[in-house]
Amino acid sequence: MTLITSSKNDLIKTLHKLNRKKNRTEQQRYLIEGVHLVREALDAQTPIEMILATEDFKRVTWVPASMSIYWLKPEVAQTLSATVTTQGIFAVLPLPTEKLPQSFNGTWLLLDGVQDPGNIGTMVRTADAAGLSGVVLGEGSADLYSDKVLRAMQGSHFHIPIYQGDLNDWLTALKAAQVPIYGSELNPAAVDFHTVPAQPEFALIMGNEGNGMQIDLLAQTEQNLYIPIQGRAESLNVAIAAGILLFQLKN
Amino acid sequence: MTLITSSKNDLIKTLHKLNRKKNRTEQQRYLIEGVHLVREALDAQTPIEMILATEDFKRVTWVPASMSIYWLKPEVAQTLSATVTTQGIFAVLPLPTEKLPQSFNGTWLLLDGVQDPGNIGTMVRTADAAGLSGVVLGEGSADLYSDKVLRAMQGSHFHIPIYQGDLNDWLTALKAAQVPIYGSELNPAAVDFHTVPAQPEFALIMGNEGNGMQIDLLAQTEQNLYIPIQGRAESLNVAIAAGILLFQLKN
Repeated sequence: MTLITSSKNDLIKTLHKLNRKKNRTEQQRYLIEGVHLVREALDAQTPIEMILATEDFKRVTWVPASMSIYWLKPEVAQTLSATVTTQGIFAVLPLPTEKLPQSFNGTWLLLDGVQDPGNIGTMVRTADAAGLSGVVLGEGSADLYSDKVLRAMQGSHFHIPIYQGDLNDWLTALKAAQVPIYGSELNPAAVDFHTVPAQPEFALIMGNEGNGMQIDLLAQTEQNLYIPIQGRAESLNVAIAAGILLFQLKN
Repeated sequence: MTLITSSKNDLIKTLHKLNRKKNRTEQQRYLIEGVHLVREALDAQTPIEMILATEDFKRVTWVPASMSIYWLKPEVAQTLSATVTTQGIFAVLPLPTEKLPQSFNGTWLLLDGVQDPGNIGTMVRTADAAGLSGVVLGEGSADLYSDKVLRAMQGSHFHIPIYQGDLNDWLTALKAAQVPIYGSELNPAAVDFHTVPAQPEFALIMGNEGNGMQIDLLAQTEQNLYIPIQGRAESLNVAIAAGILLFQLKN
């Protein structure tokens, strides 16, 4: 039941560094912020190293007494926060180490070099809502545990497995499991997504916002799906396209 | 062919203020930034008051010689910019005054109190891509001409009419035109969106991120559509939901 009164406190200084990927990797942990995310972590019974909160939260009933809790003065909470006005509650979680799934049969979203944290987070949330087996982040995709990705995921990373790895290896394994692989590159052989029925197994690859998918991955797709553009927009946002395609493919 | 060398220049100080809605309204103009948006404005032949650019842009061929152009030293461009590293080109445009459409027959997206600038911008871009007749921003929606909305719209506001007004008035006019009105509130009478066929005319209302649609608007919808959630996400991001519904409804 420690009360931390200064932003210069060693623990606070150490945790503040978790806003950078380098330090998350070094410390092998990450920080979540806000009532919604902390409650999602508790509900998911995911390992939690500690909770930090302003003393207002002494009144809430949903933090288990067995938890390691540090109380913070409001100004200390604001130091730790990535938002303009913090809700005043945080949790420190070990970085998960997802290895490989037991089976590659299932429904998958593969992200090939997606850069925008909001897009990545929103796609994980959408994959969760669609009930997929998992999401795979290829090399070159933005880091999963930054504040912006965490905010957009809304806790979906506690619900759905997320893997990081070489997408070439994944495609090899998915093909061995006879899972159909769909790309989302607009090319002459691409088919209107409306014509593809919902199916029990698939892998959908979404590419980089500006450059699309890598050519060597593209060569391994069975079919490319396109969403017909009727207006004058050049393209759809990648997360919107993923949402439309996933809710078509998933049965 | 003026060269502006100081951030203290009166024009720069005046234009810098356009980062606030209050000042955009007062000056009746807004600022766009970046090669993509400026080129979209030129292509759309929308009224442009002036272009401001670093001298690197003296070499480009796509800026008409008839344009009023101010050249900027790089540090002046950075002052004007909302990004960390500016591309160094801006345009000042008069605030458009969309009145009411000539006909309410068509396909419409109505935003009821949507707050997040990225969500608004992405939905306008999606409505453009889907080929809708227009987008209507109800009172309480975030302002259209902020930097974040403009960035997410990617120039779609040059392609598709955007109206701002009281959604109650719009619903009255849409009903008079016999346009079917769909809400997106999850309630016991809501139907799975898959069961609703594509149609030549409709209005789809998307509500606030946290609170959904206003009750008095909800009462005026013909049908509410829901997107079945199969996983453990509580909900979809509002822009993702709009994308899925629009590409189902639009034929």
